[in-house]
Amino acid sequence: MQHIVDTQWMGNMRFNALYDTHTILMDAPPKSGGDDYAPIPKPFVLTALSGCTGMDVVAVLRKKSISLDNFDIKVEGELSKTAPITYTHINLVYSIAGNTAYAADVLQAVSDSQEKYCGVSALLKKAIPVTWQVVYNGEELFNNRKVAE
Amino acid sequence: MQHIVDTQWMGNMRFNALYDTHTILMDAPPKSGGDDYAPIPKPFVLTALSGCTGMDVVAVLRKKSISLDNFDIKVEGELSKTAPITYTHINLVYSIAGNTAYAADVLQAVSDSQEKYCGVSALLKKAIPVTWQVVYNGEELFNNRKVAE
Repeated sequence: MQHIVDTQWMGNMRFNALYDTHTILMDAPPKSGGDDYAPIPKPFVLTALSGCTGMDVVAVLRKKSISLDNFDIKVEGELSKTAPITYTHINLVYSIAGNTAYAADVLQAVSDSQEKYCGVSALLKKAIPVTWQVVYNGEELFNNRKVAE
Repeated sequence: MQHIVDTQWMGNMRFNALYDTHTILMDAPPKSGGDDYAPIPKPFVLTALSGCTGMDVVAVLRKKSISLDNFDIKVEGELSKTAPITYTHINLVYSIAGNTAYAADVLQAVSDSQEKYCGVSALLKKAIPVTWQVVYNGEELFNNRKVAE
């Protein structure tokens, strides 16, 4: 099975990527000759990672009938200093709020995503370190960022 | 330097990723519990790759005052059969139209992107094979897909 993205150049630095029934817009900032009409391409890698693992966590918790009050994922991509400019380390900070009784389930859901289910994370881990922190109701439950630095 | 993407869960399977001043929407199809309101996360990896290399090609040719009539990039991501479901091989088909006198410059621009400039390609190549084909005015100028299969 394949995913196919068809990306059309729209003039200047604009590109429209078509996937399934959806269109994803990209552009460059003025310093790179664009109009800043849409995001630059590279952070879409971080976006894919956040959505992939986020949906895993929601799906795993839903099966246990656990609902969350709030769920935010900050993805930090460290950039190389020389060309090709690429990510050299990615860290995710999962900030989740919910009933305190669910702390262990939430931590397990994130671990399962990172270690078993998330295909974007599995792909990126073949190339660079991917680390994560889990903060539940303001308290850090897990952090393997230091290990990788 | 870092890129930071902040992704917020919007309920159900919806996630909004904020990068710089832009918002990128993601959702899942109904069979995965979503509403198909926006693209699924994984193809954003292919999207990032197409935009990254597409902007390289446009920028390199612009420096030579070469303009194109049409430019389309099809990105095919082969999926693994077992979890974590991830890409195992990515192939790009660059379909470009322009003055026939520019064929060598176009080919060079794509090669430079794939071999020197495109950070997304460099990242993915550390994990899996990334191959490409260049079609200019309907004629295939380059194809290293076979080599990798």
